[in-house]
Amino acid sequence: MGVSTLNIIKIGGNVIDNEQDLNDFLEKFSALSGKKILVHGGGKIATRLAADLGIEANLIDGRRVTDAEMLKIVTMVYAGLTNKSIVSKLQNLNCDALGLSGADGDTIRTMKRPVKDIDYGFVGDIMHDSINTASIKKVLEAGFVPVFSAITHNGIGQLLNTNADTIASALAVALADLYETSLIYCFEKNGVLRDVKDENSVFERINAKDFEQLKKEGVIHTGMIPKLQNAFDAIRKGVKHVYVGNANNLHLFQQSHFGTCLVAK
Amino acid sequence: MGVSTLNIIKIGGNVIDNEQDLNDFLEKFSALSGKKILVHGGGKIATRLAADLGIEANLIDGRRVTDAEMLKIVTMVYAGLTNKSIVSKLQNLNCDALGLSGADGDTIRTMKRPVKDIDYGFVGDIMHDSINTASIKKVLEAGFVPVFSAITHNGIGQLLNTNADTIASALAVALADLYETSLIYCFEKNGVLRDVKDENSVFERINAKDFEQLKKEGVIHTGMIPKLQNAFDAIRKGVKHVYVGNANNLHLFQQSHFGTCLVAK
Repeated sequence: MGVSTLNIIKIGGNVIDNEQDLNDFLEKFSALSGKKILVHGGGKIATRLAADLGIEANLIDGRRVTDAEMLKIVTMVYAGLTNKSIVSKLQNLNCDALGLSGADGDTIRTMKRPVKDIDYGFVGDIMHDSINTASIKKVLEAGFVPVFSAITHNGIGQLLNTNADTIASALAVALADLYETSLIYCFEKNGVLRDVKDENSVFERINAKDFEQLKKEGVIHTGMIPKLQNAFDAIRKGVKHVYVGNANNLHLFQQSHFGTCLVAK
Repeated sequence: MGVSTLNIIKIGGNVIDNEQDLNDFLEKFSALSGKKILVHGGGKIATRLAADLGIEANLIDGRRVTDAEMLKIVTMVYAGLTNKSIVSKLQNLNCDALGLSGADGDTIRTMKRPVKDIDYGFVGDIMHDSINTASIKKVLEAGFVPVFSAITHNGIGQLLNTNADTIASALAVALADLYETSLIYCFEKNGVLRDVKDENSVFERINAKDFEQLKKEGVIHTGMIPKLQNAFDAIRKGVKHVYVGNANNLHLFQQSHFGTCLVAK
């Protein structure tokens, strides 16, 4: 018997913030065959709730500073409202979803980011051994579809806020020891575009060598570079494919072609 | 091989609202050997959050009316903040906790309460087939300790707010088909008291016949009657023992004697 495949799909706030988009996406996600994991980001609900409570969102370099009050809010919204709403919707679509934070089953144990120039507060950084593959395997082999929010813990009772992209990538890398993993980042664009203004100019396939060349040529622009760098890191660490594409097109993933496929060579 | 025992422990808001009490209780819970499930109620955080957001808590006959806004709040607090805080604390105590709402793994499917005289809103009532024993068995047999919040769903995408006492009792009854189940209600008192003012006047054991007698004698007073009635219902439906006692004494449960033990005869 060969190794099973496992698809790890990450959606961001843009999908979560629009109920129709979310429903459409979840229908496509539920139709994917085989083992799969969903990782969801935050969305605007947490920011809005904080504002309603008179707590100001504090961002440094685009990263949320998570003080004690904000940690409560993101735990409530991400691990509570958003996670359970998604799970309930997936159950209605005959997908046996089971919502998890990193505390549940000790699945993702992170380290509170050390304070250097900036105190990011209760932010948990992924370490090389953060992913409890044995625990996640038990959930997968029981037939459940794990749905991860981006709330983790440090193993000694402290919940922490972690970047959802990083969680998705760390899951794909760690679980590559047990499954043939693919990592699928859903975002607003149809893929990596040759011309950022033309949604039809999607690269079908980019390998590590192409990536270096496209960076040199300036075709892949600044904002995209770290995203793709992380993707190629994951591939180097054993992930079979990384896809980036539009959440609306996820139904094409197992049928024909989805977004841009990043491969080693 | 005999049937495994399974202890289902329910704690209420009074334990959750006091961090020290909660920590003490969780230490005792984590020390219990064998299969176990924790069911937790709400506490005051949801009411406080609603107040901070200018949403008034609406109670009819002591039951919370759950409108759309309040459903969001209880989902955030019960299934998010409270559930994940408990799970993270239990993990620190080497208890492999996994937090669940009824939507997760479709474990508890309820029916939105029909509107008669009063519209209770998004409240889910337990039905005879609400508990998905196969799904919960998978979680238990994988070695996890399920921690249930009182958020359920209707199976078609709607989250619902359900009474935690009823969830605990329904779990114990349904899982009695698979395990030798005991149901342990933790509350403020040391057990069923002969004299309500004397915490040392605990009945050690009450059977169904004693219960009828004590009701006649007026020893068991009004507020306690429905609680015990529900307990004896659970026993009639296959639960081995129901215990009522003080959360502070849970360490005595497997050592000597905890609270009042209700038995069939």
